[in-house]
This record gives sequence, C-alpha cells and structure tokens, in this order.
Amino acid sequence: MPLPERALIRRIQDRVGRNRLVARGIGDDCAVLRLPREHEALITTDFSLEGVHFRREWQSAECSGHRCLARGLSDIAAMGGEPIAAFLSLAVPSDLPQRWVDRFLGGFSALANKYNVELAGGDTAQSPAGVLADVVVFGSAPRGKALLRAGACPGDRVYVTGKLGLSAAMLEQLRSRVGKKIDIFPEPRIAVGKWLRERAIASACIDISDGLSTDLFHLCEESGVGAVIAADAIPISRASPSANRHALELALHGGEDYELLFTAPKSKRLPKVIAGVAIASIGEIVRGKPKMQLVLDGTTMPLEAKGWEHFRARR
Amino acid sequence: MPLPERALIRRIQDRVGRNRLVARGIGDDCAVLRLPREHEALITTDFSLEGVHFRREWQSAECSGHRCLARGLSDIAAMGGEPIAAFLSLAVPSDLPQRWVDRFLGGFSALANKYNVELAGGDTAQSPAGVLADVVVFGSAPRGKALLRAGACPGDRVYVTGKLGLSAAMLEQLRSRVGKKIDIFPEPRIAVGKWLRERAIASACIDISDGLSTDLFHLCEESGVGAVIAADAIPISRASPSANRHALELALHGGEDYELLFTAPKSKRLPKVIAGVAIASIGEIVRGKPKMQLVLDGTTMPLEAKGWEHFRARR
Repeated sequence: MPLPERALIRRIQDRVGRNRLVARGIGDDCAVLRLPREHEALITTDFSLEGVHFRREWQSAECSGHRCLARGLSDIAAMGGEPIAAFLSLAVPSDLPQRWVDRFLGGFSALANKYNVELAGGDTAQSPAGVLADVVVFGSAPRGKALLRAGACPGDRVYVTGKLGLSAAMLEQLRSRVGKKIDIFPEPRIAVGKWLRERAIASACIDISDGLSTDLFHLCEESGVGAVIAADAIPISRASPSANRHALELALHGGEDYELLFTAPKSKRLPKVIAGVAIASIGEIVRGKPKMQLVLDGTTMPLEAKGWEHFRARR
Repeated sequence: MPLPERALIRRIQDRVGRNRLVARGIGDDCAVLRLPREHEALITTDFSLEGVHFRREWQSAECSGHRCLARGLSDIAAMGGEPIAAFLSLAVPSDLPQRWVDRFLGGFSALANKYNVELAGGDTAQSPAGVLADVVVFGSAPRGKALLRAGACPGDRVYVTGKLGLSAAMLEQLRSRVGKKIDIFPEPRIAVGKWLRERAIASACIDISDGLSTDLFHLCEESGVGAVIAADAIPISRASPSANRHALELALHGGEDYELLFTAPKSKRLPKVIAGVAIASIGEIVRGKPKMQLVLDGTTMPLEAKGWEHFRARR
C-alpha cells in the first residue's frame, strides 16, 4: 500500500474533528462510544468495492470517498438518527497513486466534518485487487423512536424527498462516453429524517439506495402491505434525458439516489419542503400482500422491484 | 456470488441466536442496539482478506469463519468488554463453491453462538478477487472502566495469557508442505478480560494480534513507558519446533495468537490461572521512552517490534 498503515491512519485522523460522544477513538483495541441519555445505538455497514460499487475511471477519488460515507449516513437518516462516528476499513493495491488515496480521504473527511462525524477506527490492508472500502457508521436515536421499515398502514400516503434518477442517468452517460468522469455527491437526508422522527409523523421509512421500486418493495414487505404509485407524481431529476418513459424507468428502478421514501397517515399534513428538501406525495399504501402497482396514463399496472446494478460494467 | 444476497442473509440469521440488547437486527437500514445501564459501546472492525490475512488452501472454511470473528472478539476481550453483536460484510467470487460459504458461515456462527453474539447486520457483494470479509463487533463495558493501552506505570509487572507462537509455527509448517491444511481456532479471552476489568487489576491491556514485540510496543507507546522482558519467562507453545532460539523468535514476533498482554501493579497478586487460562509474568515496565529490552541468557539486548505478515505468501 502506498502509505504505511500508521501514517495513513494519522492522516485520516488529522482531517476529521472530534465528537464529544467518542470517549476513545483510534489507538486502542476498540473505540469507546457514548450514547445520549435514553438513546439507542444505530449501526450500519456498507461495502464500496471498485468494479462493483464504483469505477475509478468513472468518478473522482473525492467523489468515491464522499459516496462511501454517504451510503452509511443515508441509512442513519432513514432511521431518523443522528450520526456520531464512522469506521473506515480501506484496502488499496500497492500500485495505487498516493494522490488518489489523499483525495479519497479528502472527500470522505469533508462529508464527515459536515455532519460532525468522528473517524473512530477502521482497518487498513494491501488489496489483492482494486480499492476495497467497508464503512461503518454509528449513530443514535431516542429509545424506541427510530423510524423503521415496518409500520406503514393501508391508507397512508407515500412520500419521497428530492428528485430521483440522477445517478442512473449519469451512469448511462458514463457507459456511452469513454474516458469521462461524472461526479455526483449525494447529500444524506439527515435533517429530514430527524424532522420526521421528532414529530412522529412517518409510519415507516427507508432510504432509496437500490431504486424506488426495490426499496418500496422492502418497505411493503416489512410492513405487510401493498402500494399504488402515481407515475406522474414521481419527482424526476432534471438531469434525466427527458420527461419521457425512459426517464421514468430510471427514476423507478435506478439506484444510489439516497433520497428518503416514507409513509405517513393521511391525517398528518406534510409541508412541501422539509429542512430545505422538496417532499413529493407519490402514492398510497393499500391492504394486502406486498404487491406494488403503478398508475400510468390512467392505466393501473403491476410494478416490479427491479434491482440496481451499481456501477458494474454492462455485460 | 453463489447465493442471492437475501438467501445468504437469511441463512446467516438462521444460524445465530438472539441477544436481548439487539432491539432490531437485520431487516432495517440500521441495526438498533441497546447498552446495559451506565455502559459505553465498544466497536472494533477487522478486514480478513484472502491472500492477505488467510489462504483458502491453508485453512478450512470453518476455520476462516471462526478466525475472522475471533479477531474482533479478541479486541473486545482486550478492553475487558462483553460482546453483544457482530456485523459481517462478505464478498465472494462468483465461482466459489456454495459449500465453502456454508462452512465459513458455520465456523462464524458457532463462535458467535458460544459468546451469545447476535449477527445484527452486514453487507454482501460479489467479489472482484478472492473472499473479502470485514467483521465489526459491538460490545459494552461499564462507563470509564474499559481496559486501555495507556495506563502502564514504571514498576508494573507484564503478563500474558496462554502460550505464544502457535500460529507462527503452523504458518511455517504450511509454507513447507504443499496442499496441506492446518486449522487453529483461537479462543478469544473474553472471560479473562472481564475478570481483570471487574477487579480493576490491569493498568493497561492489549491483545496479541500482531506479535508480542509489536503489541508490547503499542502498549508502551500509548502508556509512555519502556519494558524489560525475560526471554525464559515467555510461555512458548508446545507446537513450536523446539524450545530453542527459533521457537522464541516465533513467540516474540509471530502474530495471530489472540492472547492478552497486560500490566498490573506489583502490589496486586495475580493468580496463576484466570478463568481456566494460564497467566505468565514475563517482565516489568520501566521508566522512559517506549523502548523495549529482552533479557536472554543473562544478557540484556534491545527488543525490536517486528511486524507480523499474516498469511501472506513469502516473497
């Protein structure tokens, strides 16, 4: 690996601030972390593997560093939690330029600092193939108050934050243009999740990492309900090719948007904007099996969960 | 990957028991974990990469699964903590036999069950090269009572649990015999760590994962002290070639023994056996820079920290 392990760890440490809930960070066998009174711990872990989740030739090192932390922060947001600390396990091939590692850590630590997340540990190794990162994010929520996937009830409205399909649209562009990089820095919806949790408004919540159709299916499955979505209500990213059927497909099935998908009883009035982020009402929860339907041009059709392929090369 | 992600996750879930402190495990965006009253969280994360930390041709799948969890449990033991939950991020190549994955999970979950550790989350992916595992262990210790690397004082005695050099001796055998597997299932010293913490006996503690010389150096560095070790007091594994100079080298510098190395004031009387594990007094903490010395055959010589190369192939 370009940097000896110790030096790499110190370099990361130097870049991020402290969080008062981290009693001991890097330097012991374990990190020691505290929770605010009457809070529970939230923990999420995400692989970011070169060639599977990202490609070095398609996005900058800063963007890769940002995104591998953003994935975990987005999970904390989906639970209505507040992030406290992150752990970065990073393996890099021995021939990777030092500059790439520095810029990766720059992207990672800029996002960590923005959310007062301390780097409290991790691991480093030489990679047998490509850059391998595994990021753990530790956060907290008041006891029993975390937003869950289970809890959506028939009659609840379905909402999404922001716009969908941006990552998928960019991915298409990358596949068609050789040698070009396109950076997208998704913003974890921490403030929106906290807003929903504090007001006990959402009956269920999940982040859209695998695509709206797949993550809606997860929510329906855990809640034991179905959903009907209005195609023309889905907020489509302006970066999509055009407001046509294909753009809708990207918004429905493209992943890595890191927006929140949540449900709330009809009786709760939702503002159009929460914490500066637009909220769109896109459908309704219905009784029955976790089956999803899409209303498009006046016709109701089955909506399938179509998994997301990340940045994998097309076969 | 041989198994679709969902099926793999369910298969892991089925194998491990519940821990009452895990409020929500797999199935939400984050796991939700509780701490006993007045406790702090302990978190450790360890990569286990094929070709770097283990080799499939040198150890069984069960042993690999056991060891990748044992590394994290050993870190919890070194802090005097009690483990609660583990997170397994696992990427495997698409051509890996299903049976290997099953046996790996078998080794992992057998150890998890023994220590009442619930599998509370993780991630799965297809690996670009070899088996890649990253294991996070979450545990707890009473607030302010975790054993740290800092705290050793001049005059303190230095102790180790069990015997040293077994993994290094086995590694030598593996390198000399093609096609043979040798399995070692290290036992995390959870009970010893807890015993030391409950009685407030240890002034500092670390686990021996990188070799006695390297981990003693870490402890000295964090405590701002030096150490003098008596070569003939080091408990050498009987699996070592013989009680000669080479066996001593393996015990001093070989890694992956997962024993505890700790210090305690001279005034504290230590039993010869704690929780069924032999305790050896091997030296003394001295004033001054983090410098280490070895007394061998009546001669005092500098002791260098010689890093451990895991299961990497010899160059």
